[in-house]
Amino acid sequence: MTGSMNGIVVVIGTLAALCTITSFVPQIWKILKERDASSVSLRMYALTVSAFTLWTIYGVMLKAWPLVLANSVSLLLAGTALACKWRFRNGEPDA
Amino acid sequence: MTGSMNGIVVVIGTLAALCTITSFVPQIWKILKERDASSVSLRMYALTVSAFTLWTIYGVMLKAWPLVLANSVSLLLAGTALACKWRFRNGEPDA
Repeated sequence: MTGSMNGIVVVIGTLAALCTITSFVPQIWKILKERDASSVSLRMYALTVSAFTLWTIYGVMLKAWPLVLANSVSLLLAGTALACKWRFRNGEPDA
Repeated sequence: MTGSMNGIVVVIGTLAALCTITSFVPQIWKILKERDASSVSLRMYALTVSAFTLWTIYGVMLKAWPLVLANSVSLLLAGTALACKWRFRNGEPDA
């Protein structure tokens, strides 16, 4: 692989990681704003949180620190989305 | 890394990939069953689909075929969830 090709790969990988990490922010924001998560799947977030936990462990075992960083931040955000889903699972808890 | 350690890494990576891939299935199922995706974030799925597209391109450029396989299947399922969100974005389209 040439040097410039390698640079493109790094840019695409970085963009991919940023999209993965930031993807949970609009969902968290939407739940908090509308105080409703009734149509969000709890099972989906249980699996997503498990996935990022396993990817983080995988990264630690391989000493692949960019993988650890991207997946631990994603884990934090997906965990926040899961907590929001749980709190507003049937809409506004005070309603 | 010893041989048995390497085996554990492969098992954890495989479990992580399976959790990522299968995570979208309960969300798709829930939307189709309830015919409602009002609290699911469209922006989240737009970012998720972008992320898997970029990860697939990244895998192709690195000729990392397990990465390509896992991310292209995830792309297909996240794309299906995005389409379900779009169709039922305000609840039942016929209502």
